Amino acid sequence: MISEIETLLAAREFHALRRKITELPVSLLADIVSELPSPDDVIFFRLLPRHTAADVFEYAPPEKQQALIQALASHQRRLAELLNDLAPDDRTALFEELPGPIVQRLMNLLAPEEKTIAATLLGYPEESVGRLMTPDYVAIRGEWTIADALRHIRCYGRDSETLNIIYVVDEKWRLVDDLRIREVLLASPEARIADLIDGHCDALLTTDDQERAVRCFAETDRVALPVVDSSGILVGIVTVDDVLDVAEEEVTEDIQKIGGLEVLHEPYMDTPLFTLVKKRARWLTALFLGEMLTATAMGYFEAEIARAVVLALFVPLIISSGGNSGSQAATLIIRAMAVGEITLADWWRVMRREIFSGLSLGAVLGVIGFVRVAVWQELFGIYGEHWPFIALTVGLSLIGVVLWGTLSGSMLPFFIRSLGGDPATSSAPFVATLVDVTGLVIYFSVAALLLSGRLL
Amino acid sequence: MISEIETLLAAREFHALRRKITELPVSLLADIVSELPSPDDVIFFRLLPRHTAADVFEYAPPEKQQALIQALASHQRRLAELLNDLAPDDRTALFEELPGPIVQRLMNLLAPEEKTIAATLLGYPEESVGRLMTPDYVAIRGEWTIADALRHIRCYGRDSETLNIIYVVDEKWRLVDDLRIREVLLASPEARIADLIDGHCDALLTTDDQERAVRCFAETDRVALPVVDSSGILVGIVTVDDVLDVAEEEVTEDIQKIGGLEVLHEPYMDTPLFTLVKKRARWLTALFLGEMLTATAMGYFEAEIARAVVLALFVPLIISSGGNSGSQAATLIIRAMAVGEITLADWWRVMRREIFSGLSLGAVLGVIGFVRVAVWQELFGIYGEHWPFIALTVGLSLIGVVLWGTLSGSMLPFFIRSLGGDPATSSAPFVATLVDVTGLVIYFSVAALLLSGRLL
Repeated sequence: MISEIETLLAAREFHALRRKITELPVSLLADIVSELPSPDDVIFFRLLPRHTAADVFEYAPPEKQQALIQALASHQRRLAELLNDLAPDDRTALFEELPGPIVQRLMNLLAPEEKTIAATLLGYPEESVGRLMTPDYVAIRGEWTIADALRHIRCYGRDSETLNIIYVVDEKWRLVDDLRIREVLLASPEARIADLIDGHCDALLTTDDQERAVRCFAETDRVALPVVDSSGILVGIVTVDDVLDVAEEEVTEDIQKIGGLEVLHEPYMDTPLFTLVKKRARWLTALFLGEMLTATAMGYFEAEIARAVVLALFVPLIISSGGNSGSQAATLIIRAMAVGEITLADWWRVMRREIFSGLSLGAVLGVIGFVRVAVWQELFGIYGEHWPFIALTVGLSLIGVVLWGTLSGSMLPFFIRSLGGDPATSSAPFVATLVDVTGLVIYFSVAALLLSGRLL
Repeated sequence: MISEIETLLAAREFHALRRKITELPVSLLADIVSELPSPDDVIFFRLLPRHTAADVFEYAPPEKQQALIQALASHQRRLAELLNDLAPDDRTALFEELPGPIVQRLMNLLAPEEKTIAATLLGYPEESVGRLMTPDYVAIRGEWTIADALRHIRCYGRDSETLNIIYVVDEKWRLVDDLRIREVLLASPEARIADLIDGHCDALLTTDDQERAVRCFAETDRVALPVVDSSGILVGIVTVDDVLDVAEEEVTEDIQKIGGLEVLHEPYMDTPLFTLVKKRARWLTALFLGEMLTATAMGYFEAEIARAVVLALFVPLIISSGGNSGSQAATLIIRAMAVGEITLADWWRVMRREIFSGLSLGAVLGVIGFVRVAVWQELFGIYGEHWPFIALTVGLSLIGVVLWGTLSGSMLPFFIRSLGGDPATSSAPFVATLVDVTGLVIYFSVAALLLSGRLL
């Protein structure tokens, strides 16, 4: 399809192209615009009929949208049409991506009533439900019959973002209930809307955090949720497709934080290299500065290492075991918190589970560590006469370090959350760094206890 | 609400309870059943009218569903009613969680036609779209008018899982198109269905992987997708709420793999402690065995360490920097692959970006590392006359180790994926372990080069 379009574009066969366009569905047209290279995309986009253009624009990825807006800058009339035709929530999303002065210029192209809508939506705080919502919905009254409602929908429903859910309001436009269209369709035409109402309706506030919208959708099984202001007046709706995007972005943010870097906010490939490095460098440097304490800690034990170089050989093994077990625990708890399986109140139950887990995991690794030293001693005889004490030092340190890593990893998300932070900040590398320093202290303390008078 | 219900239950006020139940919406009833302790939950559940019971059951979490099934085992008739009333896709989900013999016993309680449906759905492979779908949808014919269609929906739509999307089939029940209900509602009652059809319709195959369904929903903006068999016959639909659950589970699996443990498949708190430890122990042990190579690697350099103990002090700092930068890179790439921003074909473009990132990040840490040694030398004079060479060793090793960590972390997901594995397996701890061993070799090689004849 793309290559066919490209051929027609190259041959400037605009007539054939226009005919082709009428045959294709919007989603396919959007794919074509997205995949065509510049400036073919703009030429093709200009060929679209007015309202198709607005639909196709909504489906295009943000970078493409911005490129199209830029390319249309010299065609004021076309640009004005496009902006006025866009759904209010998609227009807000577009404006959020553009620099302030450009948004101002584009706002001036809007018709008065669209301008009011756009200004209102942009007036809500960033990351708030107000920014996500659209004022295009269908509202009906309780005293109407089903037949009235269907007639009303047929006349006024065209601009509504969804007809899957219909909203019942009172004479002051306060939200009374939301009805799934199935309830309306299945009822007899003479029945009254008021008879269908169950008086129970989940609504969002304009000022709610967008994360609340994500959770609310997950819990309620609805494809759209009403948004009310503080006095209960219905001001808009949020549809599930917009929330899906928010949910995916949130997961990406969580994963990036767990991986120990700042949130990119853009796709990996679209992030400028300099930004990419900067976002990683800050955390990496912070971790590095923390990790420098390991050099200081090891400095304290320099005399011991000089006397028993063998001690140094197990340092990477021991501290990495603490880091790995901590990273496992942190990941488990962060995710369980994100999906709401665990709340702050569960900290003590989690701690009990993790003490058991940490001891068990530590015991497994401790035994393997002990056996490793014993076997190598048997095979190569490299650890000398005091090898049982070396093996014991390694084994016991592993139990201590793994227990400590598991506890730190599982409790740090609780601690960060109780301070009002995002638990995902207690990333795997953060926990590992924390555990490395303490791991060294545990290891050399056990060594001092078991080996003094022998090797030390 | 809960406490009120508990009081009524305790007082055995069943009459008052039944009245109360008729006033409450299903979602709230489901919350009550979920939160009531055993055996109050079962008593309360039994009080629900037949069809409400099935709805409430669908909303309850899987553990609660299983507990209810178990408690109803002695009430064959009630259990049979419940199972027959459940939506087919929810019944499949329930059966998937139960042991085989129990599923067999429950299947025998189903009415003949429900049994056929259940057996068919369970016949599809695990993780396939067939397991997610429901055969309850509304199909209409192209030659009908809108008024015909609305009448048909009113008569036969009650059992349909959704009325937001209606399916158009031909005389052989082959899928022709899907229509959003808005298109039907907005058209004039005399118009023909055939006039609304655009001939373009995304459909899933029964054998498709459930992940394909997740991606398809994200791309198409639909709240339900049709499922066809290999000859194009419409056999069921999948609704977005079921897919949201699949998507959330997938993300949890990805995050757990990135965290370096086996996928739990159950909520953290519900996972038996022994299973929890086992799932973590296997990866932890594998990583530990890999990490043992560090002890071997350091053994090779034992003589150097003995001559210059100062070298050992920087070991944790240097290898952890490699691990952290690798964990950042792996996390970025795994997530970008999961959301489809990056495909296998992009490996070379990613590699170029990561070589640049790795060198830049390495340079930043390298300079800090150099300065750290210089400043400590100035303050405490602990590194002796050859300090500039020690500082240079630390700085250059950091550049090498960070570059290597970044490259390993970013390329490992590509490598695993090209072998047909899940890129999320290249977890942060896995990359860190890989980088630790090579990091040591890089460090001691640089040291041998710069310090031999001086400290070594």
